[in-house]
Amino acid sequence: MRAARHLARVSEVDLKAYIRDVPDFPAPGVLFRDITPLLRHPPAFARALSLVRAGVEEFRPDVIVAIESRGFLFGAPVAQALALPFVPVRKPGKLPSARMSIEYTLEYGNSQLDIHADAVGEGQRAVIIDDVLATGGTALAAARLVELVGGVVAGMVFLVELTAFGGRSELAGYDVRSFIRYG
Amino acid sequence: MRAARHLARVSEVDLKAYIRDVPDFPAPGVLFRDITPLLRHPPAFARALSLVRAGVEEFRPDVIVAIESRGFLFGAPVAQALALPFVPVRKPGKLPSARMSIEYTLEYGNSQLDIHADAVGEGQRAVIIDDVLATGGTALAAARLVELVGGVVAGMVFLVELTAFGGRSELAGYDVRSFIRYG
Repeated sequence: MRAARHLARVSEVDLKAYIRDVPDFPAPGVLFRDITPLLRHPPAFARALSLVRAGVEEFRPDVIVAIESRGFLFGAPVAQALALPFVPVRKPGKLPSARMSIEYTLEYGNSQLDIHADAVGEGQRAVIIDDVLATGGTALAAARLVELVGGVVAGMVFLVELTAFGGRSELAGYDVRSFIRYG
Repeated sequence: MRAARHLARVSEVDLKAYIRDVPDFPAPGVLFRDITPLLRHPPAFARALSLVRAGVEEFRPDVIVAIESRGFLFGAPVAQALALPFVPVRKPGKLPSARMSIEYTLEYGNSQLDIHADAVGEGQRAVIIDDVLATGGTALAAARLVELVGGVVAGMVFLVELTAFGGRSELAGYDVRSFIRYG
């Protein structure tokens, strides 16, 4: 654990150089953390993936559940690296087969997420992946979906955590890992 | 080339077993090809990625441009495997920094795609990746965006091609590869 914490600390310094601050996006007064420079720099993206992968491995999952869309960027490579099934949690109208849906509240109105009913087997351990943890509303909805279809949420892994939004308390009861933090 | 074609033919047979036909989605009379079973089967997903990667390598790109959202599932792992920059083309309201936009026509109304203005360097060779080629409208819009920001479209790679929708003729002038075809 001490070694893991040290790794996270070193990488945090490096990776923040590839995250761009964009003021007033998506709304006035909001400071957006833009990961596209990181995606465009292969060694930085590789380091980010390696951190996410290490976080995921700790939870010994049977399946990777990633949240549309930026969660796919981390979930797909990590699922492949660990030879684990990849399951998308998607916005409404995207998943074509039998599915479960959940509505949840965001800052500005309601939103909905879907999962295929056969995506996670009964009792399978799922790790939920997304790029950024903010309020935790979306991740909580994804966790409920995994449980609705019979899975167990072994943990949640985010590359970035915006601690001021209180996602950790929203996700109390779940085991959460993140690697780059902003207050 | 002969070896590559043979590989594509063999894999086509195998991979189709992991693509689920869903009638009447997203509209009555449409037969949707659902790749989520493939994503849930790590060896099938690995084979699909290996085909896409081989197609991409032929074009000797400088940068990978993937189309939101399912293009991310193939674009991110392939960009990492080839140590190439990953650039997302996204739906409106998602990219936070200076960007170029394009509107295009789909079967049911108009749509818009965005790219960050600094995403592809002047003269850089981009390969565009998506999961499925149907009408080609979305891929054509992505190609125009790459060109708007100064890049060159070296080629386009799709895992699946739905030949009846005529995407090849919409994309005439671009070099297109696909690996699993449905009439």
